[in-house]
Amino acid sequence: MKVVVTGSAGFVGRALVTRLRDQAHDVLGVDRAADADIRGDIGDPAVLARLFAAGCDAIVHLATMPGGAAEQDPAGARRINLDASMALADAVAAAGHRPRFIFASSIAVLGDPLPPQVDDETPLAPRLIYGAHKAMIEQWLATMDRRGALSALSVRLPGIVARPEGPSGMKSAFLSEIFHALAAGRPFTAPVSPQATMWLMSVDRAVANLTHALAIDASGALTLPALRMSFAELATEIARQTGGDTTRISYDPDPVLEAGFGRQPPLFTSAADQLGFAHDGSLTTLVAKGLNR
Amino acid sequence: MKVVVTGSAGFVGRALVTRLRDQAHDVLGVDRAADADIRGDIGDPAVLARLFAAGCDAIVHLATMPGGAAEQDPAGARRINLDASMALADAVAAAGHRPRFIFASSIAVLGDPLPPQVDDETPLAPRLIYGAHKAMIEQWLATMDRRGALSALSVRLPGIVARPEGPSGMKSAFLSEIFHALAAGRPFTAPVSPQATMWLMSVDRAVANLTHALAIDASGALTLPALRMSFAELATEIARQTGGDTTRISYDPDPVLEAGFGRQPPLFTSAADQLGFAHDGSLTTLVAKGLNR
Repeated sequence: MKVVVTGSAGFVGRALVTRLRDQAHDVLGVDRAADADIRGDIGDPAVLARLFAAGCDAIVHLATMPGGAAEQDPAGARRINLDASMALADAVAAAGHRPRFIFASSIAVLGDPLPPQVDDETPLAPRLIYGAHKAMIEQWLATMDRRGALSALSVRLPGIVARPEGPSGMKSAFLSEIFHALAAGRPFTAPVSPQATMWLMSVDRAVANLTHALAIDASGALTLPALRMSFAELATEIARQTGGDTTRISYDPDPVLEAGFGRQPPLFTSAADQLGFAHDGSLTTLVAKGLNR
Repeated sequence: MKVVVTGSAGFVGRALVTRLRDQAHDVLGVDRAADADIRGDIGDPAVLARLFAAGCDAIVHLATMPGGAAEQDPAGARRINLDASMALADAVAAAGHRPRFIFASSIAVLGDPLPPQVDDETPLAPRLIYGAHKAMIEQWLATMDRRGALSALSVRLPGIVARPEGPSGMKSAFLSEIFHALAAGRPFTAPVSPQATMWLMSVDRAVANLTHALAIDASGALTLPALRMSFAELATEIARQTGGDTTRISYDPDPVLEAGFGRQPPLFTSAADQLGFAHDGSLTTLVAKGLNR
């Protein structure tokens, strides 16, 4: 199967491309980074023309301007997260016979504050520009699916850990930084409280869910299952596996980050569960995978 | 109150501008037609600059490329119904202190086929490009409202009768043509069956609901109440009020129009009802207003 991956040089993208090639798919990756199969911006029509010149059976659309960066640059966010994503959908539809389109959406579509529990009936109420654009693309792809132009499924990803160190443009970067700090024995100031509760998934599990999404026939938009834990529980387990010292963690909660990432209530994802999507199973597994152990 | 009306020279726009001026509002209309206060395309930044030069307390955004025309010209539909609407929202937000933004959305966001009843919990499932763009703007305006940039309410209008004769670009034009044909004693071939059931509202009622939307504080998106009737019931009442002859109506159902406009199930609009929105009350009233009697 000819599979295109946008954002192929990113954290999730690299792991996904490797997995798809292991499954003997013919993968073509696009990214602005030098080591992509096609280097360029998906907002550039010439890049799209090259990307789909040989046809396309399926795409996983990961490329995005993340939430923190989007708040700083609304016009740039619109260009990539809305306009380029719509142009991409048209190009994919034209490149094959009802190609499969997997869109990496985000729990940011749910907004904040969240209700006391989140399930498949929870209305979308994004507050971030990032989340609004994701919700709009979910709607557009669902319409293209109903019209028969694509076979489209949007999957809403929770926080993915542990991203590599360095600037990511993500408001949730601290969720990965705690892994690196404890593993390296560095002190760490958490921008949320110990009681902050979060939904997380390892990159391995994210890749497994994305390849599963490619293989099944479901349409529409799904919130993926995620493990829920407190920041203190996460830190304790990372320390246990790394020999790190949780007494070197101090807490200086940022009200915006606490509200946006630290108040994630019990999550019920029946629709995704029934379709075979899964979370990491246990905090032990999630942390081990987050540490690449 | 300084109120901007887009699409001010259209069928609903003219009636709305008259009503708002009767209420002593300072109204500025924009339309591509020559007799608007400002003549131009809302996709033109220079037009937006003129429109908001003196500030803005509220806007009713009616201008749209209708559903039938949008299917024929997806790029043009995107330009007006998505891109220009988003640019308009930015311009409005910049022109006042959290201005009121009333967006004329459409029952097209619900899609087809519809479930056995429609209520405030019915998920959006647009099939028309027109409906998808409307749903995306609903989402964007709701986000701008949550962010405090606007006080935004989207109201989903049903079919409005009776539009003037002549091409409208609307797939639902036949719902107005039956009024004109019976009043003029002309034969009429209906593109739906006699049993086709539809949701309708008179232009008077639409204007009353839009001015009500401006005056209240509600946010989000609401499906407005509408009278539901069969095509045969509508034709019989028009004939009764005009002395027209229903035996001159023949039926040649178009499956697409029957599916899109003739299968509208019982409609429950509790949220809008509780906020004081209303339908025409009776078929007699709706037809009388539709005939301007």
